[in-house]
Amino acid sequence: MLIQRLTIIGVGLIGGSFARALKRARVCAEIVGCGRQLDNLQEALRLGVVDHYTTDLATAVQDADVVVVAVPLGHIASVFATIRPILAPHTIITDVGSAKASVVADAYQELGEHICRFVPGHPIAGTEKSGVAASFASLFENRRVILTPLAETDPQATALITQLWQHTGAEVVSMSVEHHDEVLAATSHLPHVLAYSLVDTLAQMEDRREIFRFAAGGFRDFTRIASSDPKMWHDICLANRTAILHVLAHFNADLAELADAIEQGDSAHILSIFSRAKTARDKFSG
Amino acid sequence: MLIQRLTIIGVGLIGGSFARALKRARVCAEIVGCGRQLDNLQEALRLGVVDHYTTDLATAVQDADVVVVAVPLGHIASVFATIRPILAPHTIITDVGSAKASVVADAYQELGEHICRFVPGHPIAGTEKSGVAASFASLFENRRVILTPLAETDPQATALITQLWQHTGAEVVSMSVEHHDEVLAATSHLPHVLAYSLVDTLAQMEDRREIFRFAAGGFRDFTRIASSDPKMWHDICLANRTAILHVLAHFNADLAELADAIEQGDSAHILSIFSRAKTARDKFSG
Repeated sequence: MLIQRLTIIGVGLIGGSFARALKRARVCAEIVGCGRQLDNLQEALRLGVVDHYTTDLATAVQDADVVVVAVPLGHIASVFATIRPILAPHTIITDVGSAKASVVADAYQELGEHICRFVPGHPIAGTEKSGVAASFASLFENRRVILTPLAETDPQATALITQLWQHTGAEVVSMSVEHHDEVLAATSHLPHVLAYSLVDTLAQMEDRREIFRFAAGGFRDFTRIASSDPKMWHDICLANRTAILHVLAHFNADLAELADAIEQGDSAHILSIFSRAKTARDKFSG
Repeated sequence: MLIQRLTIIGVGLIGGSFARALKRARVCAEIVGCGRQLDNLQEALRLGVVDHYTTDLATAVQDADVVVVAVPLGHIASVFATIRPILAPHTIITDVGSAKASVVADAYQELGEHICRFVPGHPIAGTEKSGVAASFASLFENRRVILTPLAETDPQATALITQLWQHTGAEVVSMSVEHHDEVLAATSHLPHVLAYSLVDTLAQMEDRREIFRFAAGGFRDFTRIASSDPKMWHDICLANRTAILHVLAHFNADLAELADAIEQGDSAHILSIFSRAKTARDKFSG
């Protein structure tokens, strides 16, 4: 066994899938689940995702070798503040938040001397579903997990969290907090903002029934991410607002240029944008 | 047999799938393929999609009971002009164009007395792939096909085209040309414009390699339509530019409002937009 006791705070899609994957790999002797919704924790136990559960944070992190904070970004600071006095001196803390600068700021603020065993992390995986019922052991297979260790982070803590993620089948990479937030704003946060915004625009149009009735597979794929948890994405938008607004400004300028080309009937310009985009899309997804 | 000879001009994803579906339903005695790319037509014959082929439009439409024009929107006018003098008095003409006002204008301009046997049509189905190799018989199953018959269109012609589409497994509905173009601008054309534009924005960023490297499943789904044929979508953007720019203006205003809420940290506003969008998305796709 790599570790004795692992505690997951927030047993949802990501926390639950991480627990399932670690159980499958038989690297933790015991997995404790913690959260605020009793019915979700009961389901986690029934599904075999965790070995025990408690709704009490202090009980949950006692004697834990590793604590995984998998709650929405807006709750991370208060979780850190609550567990700080109970954490053992050897306990390693990690998280799975989709934006890292805000989590790191929370950690500096709330974790005190435990900052040297904090390994900020973010698995680039997920679906539009939420809750432990949607979790599955293979979610992280062949996916990337980004760790953004701090100057203070003990390399041995980073090494252990790296090993845990590798046991889920993920590839672990390391980058700076700032770079993480820029890259994710572009590839994940902005697409969610656009998908939510488009669906909301159409949902408010007069002939919305007709519109959704005639939406085909392309629209379904394009807007799937707008079925994601609104609260979670609200938190992400606020936590990473600077990077998101920055890449959105780029996008708006480019979109205005394309709209202008369409209005002017500038064939060459439209074709060059569409062709460049297709080439890039085919290259990265191929 | 419902009809003797059906000619498909443009044996690509849509034309090829229509031919396959009709062959499977055994409703045409003979299907003739026509196009400009000899290799594509040879492949269509080899795959059993068509019974004969020719690159000559005049030969292709001779003695045809039904002519299906499945070429990009930008080529429809010239196809109409070329086939007009050869069309038999009983030949029914239909098309599969993604925008209808431009096709109907082309038809009034070029089809002359044959306008009364022209049934404008649009199957709401497709993938991001192109060419006859990507075609398959079940593409239209449980999909909707919109017909926008004109005041001049012979009801018997509309009835026959309706029957043909029903034999592919599609549900056929009828609406006005203008309404079709508005609905499709919202659900299909604008999403393509946004997807192309976003991928192009990211492809031009300095750290594009990192960006595409860390793109996950959500991004893949969101941008799948940016792998569609650039020429085809160029034609659609020009053919339906008024309706596209109209819905884009709506979208831009709503997106600016959302960006403002993110910048101001207006939680309630962000949450209400995301929640409304999720509700609409879940409702129509559920």
